[in-house]
Amino acid sequence: MSNDQELGITESKSHSPGDWYAEVVLKAGLADYAPMGGFIVTRPRGYALWEGLQNHLDSWFKDTGAQNAYFPALIPESYLERESDIVEGFDPEVAWVTHGGHDELEERLAFRPTSESIITPFMSQWVRSHRDLPLRLNQWCSVIRWEATDTKPFFRTKEFLWQEGHTAHETEDEAWDETMTRLSQYERLYEDVLGIPVMRGRKPEHDKFPGAHTTTTVEALMPDGKSVQGGTSHYLGQGFAEAYDLFFTDENEDERPAHTTSWGLSWRAIGALIMTHSDEQGFVCPPELAPEQVVIVPIWQEENREEVLSYAEGIANDLEAEGVRVELDDRDERNPGFKFNEWELKGVPVRFEIGPHEVEDDEITVVHRPDGESVVEDRAGIADAMEDHFDVVYDKMYEAAADTLENNVREADSRDEILGTIGQHGGYVKAPWCGDEACEEEIKEPISAEIVMVPLDRDEEPCGDECAMCGDEAEETAYFAKSY
Amino acid sequence: MSNDQELGITESKSHSPGDWYAEVVLKAGLADYAPMGGFIVTRPRGYALWEGLQNHLDSWFKDTGAQNAYFPALIPESYLERESDIVEGFDPEVAWVTHGGHDELEERLAFRPTSESIITPFMSQWVRSHRDLPLRLNQWCSVIRWEATDTKPFFRTKEFLWQEGHTAHETEDEAWDETMTRLSQYERLYEDVLGIPVMRGRKPEHDKFPGAHTTTTVEALMPDGKSVQGGTSHYLGQGFAEAYDLFFTDENEDERPAHTTSWGLSWRAIGALIMTHSDEQGFVCPPELAPEQVVIVPIWQEENREEVLSYAEGIANDLEAEGVRVELDDRDERNPGFKFNEWELKGVPVRFEIGPHEVEDDEITVVHRPDGESVVEDRAGIADAMEDHFDVVYDKMYEAAADTLENNVREADSRDEILGTIGQHGGYVKAPWCGDEACEEEIKEPISAEIVMVPLDRDEEPCGDECAMCGDEAEETAYFAKSY
Repeated sequence: MSNDQELGITESKSHSPGDWYAEVVLKAGLADYAPMGGFIVTRPRGYALWEGLQNHLDSWFKDTGAQNAYFPALIPESYLERESDIVEGFDPEVAWVTHGGHDELEERLAFRPTSESIITPFMSQWVRSHRDLPLRLNQWCSVIRWEATDTKPFFRTKEFLWQEGHTAHETEDEAWDETMTRLSQYERLYEDVLGIPVMRGRKPEHDKFPGAHTTTTVEALMPDGKSVQGGTSHYLGQGFAEAYDLFFTDENEDERPAHTTSWGLSWRAIGALIMTHSDEQGFVCPPELAPEQVVIVPIWQEENREEVLSYAEGIANDLEAEGVRVELDDRDERNPGFKFNEWELKGVPVRFEIGPHEVEDDEITVVHRPDGESVVEDRAGIADAMEDHFDVVYDKMYEAAADTLENNVREADSRDEILGTIGQHGGYVKAPWCGDEACEEEIKEPISAEIVMVPLDRDEEPCGDECAMCGDEAEETAYFAKSY
Repeated sequence: MSNDQELGITESKSHSPGDWYAEVVLKAGLADYAPMGGFIVTRPRGYALWEGLQNHLDSWFKDTGAQNAYFPALIPESYLERESDIVEGFDPEVAWVTHGGHDELEERLAFRPTSESIITPFMSQWVRSHRDLPLRLNQWCSVIRWEATDTKPFFRTKEFLWQEGHTAHETEDEAWDETMTRLSQYERLYEDVLGIPVMRGRKPEHDKFPGAHTTTTVEALMPDGKSVQGGTSHYLGQGFAEAYDLFFTDENEDERPAHTTSWGLSWRAIGALIMTHSDEQGFVCPPELAPEQVVIVPIWQEENREEVLSYAEGIANDLEAEGVRVELDDRDERNPGFKFNEWELKGVPVRFEIGPHEVEDDEITVVHRPDGESVVEDRAGIADAMEDHFDVVYDKMYEAAADTLENNVREADSRDEILGTIGQHGGYVKAPWCGDEACEEEIKEPISAEIVMVPLDRDEEPCGDECAMCGDEAEETAYFAKSY
């Protein structure tokens, strides 16, 4: 950063959210655009967020029986095509490797778009009897989906980082429990770690993962009124097991196809995090995930420099000893105002301002990132007080997002009302729906809003008797929203 | 596993080490062959070893200033070609992506074989002044090198997992320090975590990383007499910085190219681990890395089943509470002998045998995996005693490997003696060398042994006055060995 100018976010979050988002990502040093359209470079401050998510999810996955494994990044075309047994009109938008060195390959290989087609055949080799079940595998990797889109870091990229879980079970009940366990873990990640409330739901039949019995989702509302599909967990039924020969011998010595699930969460979660909490000063990050949780900015004159710095260093040491991630910004060449701006841009949740007054009174001025609230704390016991500050900061972030969500789920019972409500407010509109994809088209076509979810419970009564579009009998409640 | 037969390793480690190795890998459930030649599937027990290595290395990297990042898996051909400025005869054996979906790409993209060509240009964007240096990035990822070879899991695969570090510095001294820091961390990983002694050295000039100033290496001796390049750390000089425009403004406002390094360690470390310690009962694993450190095998008759099991469960709980990774194998359908074999195959370092006698005497029979040594321990305080057992097991493994190394570094001072010594004993042969690649050919051509390293210290006196091959003045000591 060569001057103050570069520290400001010039775009408005409310008026041009897309440009604002891109500016925050770039200026906060989270990611850069790669030379090839659709690809990004994840910089250390962005990657640290991914590592934070990984650590949480990975430990929850392991606590609930999943084991990590690694399968090839390249999948033979013939393996992918076996999905056409279960998926009509199979047409993979993938990156194709056709040459190795100077030679053309006999069979081209796809950069994995998802790994069911390579993982399920191996599960089939490893499973012989019911004693080998359940089998729960997870893989952290990158995938490529060759879709032509404007690049939006973490939201729309051809290559993205994710985890994909793949499990096999004896019974439908067990597979369904697994599906819900993973959905709950995604929900927990959003709510407890990212500070983003989500709604659980199910994708409508025509928008399920191809070949799945049921696709469940957690949906998060962004401040611009669009919904983000935060993570999906699929109960796949027995179709994939049949297509890829994943059979087991049950207790009666009968051969049966397993019930399988898959579940994935991508770095889109980072996109949702940035989009939800950040502001026109830059990135805002929950303390749990922040690479630096506290930045100490000493404010000195020449005559008290040593005194202020040594006071600040003592505090930094105390925090570090308590496991707080702290940065003491003692750069000579920058003034405090510049430092405030820079660390706000980078998303450090708590700032300590320490000048001669604080030294004299044995105090610290503590400033919270999301709202600039400032409190004076005693120097003694400051390390112990940080957990509370972090909780307060998290609560402020979560509550602001929860308010946004609560105020943006509306009901409508006619096509015009749906169009008007989404057009005016964004957010979610609940409407009774007959279940026919054609009725979704009536909303999708004019304003690009779609049915992002229906209630998880298939027996839940629809929110009205007649489909808001066609007037036929309503089968379920559709949640319409624009989405990423 | 359907019967006892499958638990035995049928190949001999000393007579057919290649077949023995493959059998251990497959039967211990570490990896499987993928359908495409050159690719493998890393199963959970194999991947857990990789995670163990990652945890150690990653924390050491972070403690010494490296930050993780993620760069695209695909690199435009034109980016790769810029290396031809520094590397003559540039000819990448890579996997080429030529199509995205149904369309041919305007420029083909390489699956990363290593990432200097994409990382260095971005470092150049991020570095403006000396204040931005040092910049230390690391990436955990997979790479592909399209070489036609017989697949040998973890040793020779087209796709492999690794980490690649890339750093930029103001001065040669700093870059050289960095190079040695990383080499020391690789040495520490092999010695302290994997229980494998290594030798540090430098690759001869003609075998350096293309474009590097110096390539340093840690070399490990396998029991079959071949050397494994365990990890390499390169001081790249200023060539890459010049080719990719990585310049910075120094304190005098002059523009200078940075000094860069790169360093990588791959899952070959897992191959070396398996190869070094395992035996004809299967995999042998240091306690630090083992997914299960202790397996408890209860030995009961119908009349004392409850008593034995409950005693075993109490012990398992104690160990778990102390953070020991323990598995209680209480399967009814397997007898103790089968369980012993299965857990030996899988590489669990410590086995507890618990029968009615142990229950009566409040004792535990503790058996070490590498050598079958058995000791009786008191039940009380067993959890505290485990650290010592693990140390003993590790020491046995390390010392056996250190003996092998110590006994297999020999000297020779003629071509025939080198050929004869390696032919008879394998291992390393030190010989004075003039520095000419042609003299290496005299050894390489007949027996495929090469110069795996020369001493790190360029000023070290050669071990003889005349080159063992041509009789010209010797410049350095060459370490000849067959290698993986």
